[in-house]
Amino acid sequence: MFLTLEGGDAAGKTTQAVALERWLTERGRTVVRTREPGGTALGAEIRALLLHGGEVAPRAEALLYAADRAHHVATVVRPALERGDVVVQDRYLDSSVAYQGAGRVLDAEEVRGLSTWATEGLLPDLTVLLDLEPAVARQRRGGRAAEDRLESEQDDFHERVRTAFLALAAASPDRFVVVDAALPEQEVAARIRAAVEPRLGA
Amino acid sequence: MFLTLEGGDAAGKTTQAVALERWLTERGRTVVRTREPGGTALGAEIRALLLHGGEVAPRAEALLYAADRAHHVATVVRPALERGDVVVQDRYLDSSVAYQGAGRVLDAEEVRGLSTWATEGLLPDLTVLLDLEPAVARQRRGGRAAEDRLESEQDDFHERVRTAFLALAAASPDRFVVVDAALPEQEVAARIRAAVEPRLGA
Repeated sequence: MFLTLEGGDAAGKTTQAVALERWLTERGRTVVRTREPGGTALGAEIRALLLHGGEVAPRAEALLYAADRAHHVATVVRPALERGDVVVQDRYLDSSVAYQGAGRVLDAEEVRGLSTWATEGLLPDLTVLLDLEPAVARQRRGGRAAEDRLESEQDDFHERVRTAFLALAAASPDRFVVVDAALPEQEVAARIRAAVEPRLGA
Repeated sequence: MFLTLEGGDAAGKTTQAVALERWLTERGRTVVRTREPGGTALGAEIRALLLHGGEVAPRAEALLYAADRAHHVATVVRPALERGDVVVQDRYLDSSVAYQGAGRVLDAEEVRGLSTWATEGLLPDLTVLLDLEPAVARQRRGGRAAEDRLESEQDDFHERVRTAFLALAAASPDRFVVVDAALPEQEVAARIRAAVEPRLGA
């Protein structure tokens, strides 16, 4: 079973991934909790390239994310799924489509095509979209010491990303569940568990 | 004018690129001599990732080369061509198709598609294929202190790469000129100049 968490920065993806991992482990599942970009040693180096602040041509950026994804899926995700583990992953192809396609200058379907090629078409069984207004996300980010390049972009960029994520969810209602990330942490976790539980039997 | 030099390792691409740059400069042209992978600061970091010896999933490798290419074309090659400079480049998309497509496990046309997307379809005006038998190339490499990961692969791999390069040249005879790289260095240089000269008027 392949579960992904999506949403803007500060939506609580990591917190919820940790909570979901704990809950699944308590139910006897072997869980691989991972992330993109940066879920492998190679990916961590790619992520460092992307965040180090230098100018990266838009197509190069999309291709670097796709390279990270290709390596991560081939060496982490697929082996885990073949073992029967549950993969709980922070960000996957929907992030690329939302950030690169809708938020930047590239065509969303072309960016999706890169990910499809990179992963040989692997889609999550369930994607949790943690939806949060950009203004609330900015308040949350304010409490952090450092902002990276993506986080320091404008609110209107974050608004376009949010709209893109919601459109992706609306287009694939069987794969997505949208959770209001402004709710208390425990309530968000409960809603995620409610979406995961009926799929665990499979 | 966009000129690329292709061929296996030890075919003399760098030597001939330097000679061609000197000749073009003497004729009053402004030349940008560059390379892939690694023709930009970002590209040098990508190249280091690819050569450091760790396992890289085949699709990730192809995407990393495409990312290097996208950034290089956007920030080096296109600006130079727009200024009216001559670009003399060591390796371009034909290397990706020959090495990744024919030599590895990936579909050659899919690898070409990545490069086409990465470069928005930019093709060289002329591609010089420096053709050399793998056995001769191996003898030449023997004189070098260190062999990197690609150079240490088997001769049959190099034979498949050579065959792939020759097939690419045969498929695009207007763009390619094939030069026997076993000839003396000065003779190879003369044949390259003979191919470049009629195109300089354009």
